[in-house]
Amino acid sequence: MDIKSVQNRLRAFAQEREWEQFHSPKNLATALAVEAAELLEPFQWLKDEESRQLAQNPSDYARVEEEIADVMIYLLRLADQLEIDLDRVVEEKIRKNGEKYPVALAKGNAVKYNRRDS
Amino acid sequence: MDIKSVQNRLRAFAQEREWEQFHSPKNLATALAVEAAELLEPFQWLKDEESRQLAQNPSDYARVEEEIADVMIYLLRLADQLEIDLDRVVEEKIRKNGEKYPVALAKGNAVKYNRRDS
Amino acid sequence: MDIKSVQNRLRAFAQEREWEQFHSPKNLATALAVEAAELLEPFQWLKDEESRQLAQNPSDYARVEEEIADVMIYLLRLADQLEIDLDRVVEEKIRKNGEKYPVALAKGNAVKYNRRDS
Amino acid sequence: MDIKSVQNRLRAFAQEREWEQFHSPKNLATALAVEAAELLEPFQWLKDEESRQLAQNPSDYARVEEEIADVMIYLLRLADQLEIDLDRVVEEKIRKNGEKYPVALAKGNAVKYNRRDS
Repeated sequence: MDIKSVQNRLRAFAQEREWEQFHSPKNLATALAVEAAELLEPFQWLKDEESRQLAQNPSDYARVEEEIADVMIYLLRLADQLEIDLDRVVEEKIRKNGEKYPVALAKGNAVKYNRRDS
Repeated sequence: MDIKSVQNRLRAFAQEREWEQFHSPKNLATALAVEAAELLEPFQWLKDEESRQLAQNPSDYARVEEEIADVMIYLLRLADQLEIDLDRVVEEKIRKNGEKYPVALAKGNAVKYNRRDS
Repeated sequence: MDIKSVQNRLRAFAQEREWEQFHSPKNLATALAVEAAELLEPFQWLKDEESRQLAQNPSDYARVEEEIADVMIYLLRLADQLEIDLDRVVEEKIRKNGEKYPVALAKGNAVKYNRRDS
Repeated sequence: MDIKSVQNRLRAFAQEREWEQFHSPKNLATALAVEAAELLEPFQWLKDEESRQLAQNPSDYARVEEEIADVMIYLLRLADQLEIDLDRVVEEKIRKNGEKYPVALAKGNAVKYNRRDS
């Protein structure tokens, strides 16, 4: 994905509709959280294993595809409005996670690093 | 961003730590929603205008950068586990939004299309 | 719980601190969603069965107690600011749910009523 | 509100429908977060002041009433399943907040106590 190019198209989309007035970082972060919850909704009563077989339910699968797109679009808009470079912050976070969860300690253990001794 | 390549690195990261057992689509969608709320948290008491000046508060800005990365990472993982092509679904959603919100009707109006008459 | 009396104390608490300016319904709904996600966080990697044994993990249990209180407090504040009678809306919703999910159709089936045929 | 009595009715409602299998604390916390986001949704593009006038929009107001009820119902169910006494944890939290945010320091300042020096 050419992040910058998609962001430019989304910004033009908002500007043409005079939506920039609504697209404050606060409102975009709110919309993102709302969409993330809509993405979670089809999973709420599923067992773990059922969620791994979501493709067997075409209507839920299609809905999840759409919600994933909504989350991505608001994330791109928010990063654009805040002038945050998505590539850079993802790379930094992957590096940090590598330090925080060394293989030897994290193996088979989802407990967060900072609670490892508790 | 080379989405596929980052997804492959994130998958390897999870596999090395034997985290695939935790990374069901249900759990990843949950983690994504939790991170989206953490991203929203620094904005919760801000006025709209203050949120546009977030860069003036370096510690909140750094936190938002990190939370944006977390949301992106779980979104990439979730799409990967469900074999959903992020580029494709984003393109489809942008096209749909163009049909749903024609400029003439949507200008300066954040109301959702399906409530335009209400 | 004497809902009105707790709401009055919470309102006085906010007024003494001159927090009413921050406690718009929009901001309170945001804070509520943020707290609900914090309440979800300790459950995110747990298996269903593990979540039923949460009391065996005293630190997570204590945290969940506190997050439940936070959610309740923001819910009381929000209902108070919007002059919504919590008792009344809960009673109405229980009645509606009884109509929407008749025992004969809903038994053992978490699927929402409006998707029952899909 | 007689919390215990409403909880007993909600538990009977779930048991009659054989929904206890779905109502693990994890799933209830998920449903609660999803409902909290649905409650947030009508506010997402509103200005602060508009959100204080929500009653002027009867359809949004009715929707918010219903979402507030949904959040409350899942909160009651979750507390019941975890055997957490809502009255007690709310009282404890109000007391803690009084210590954390003394009037002299918190006046007109929404910044969290633990960031007061930053």
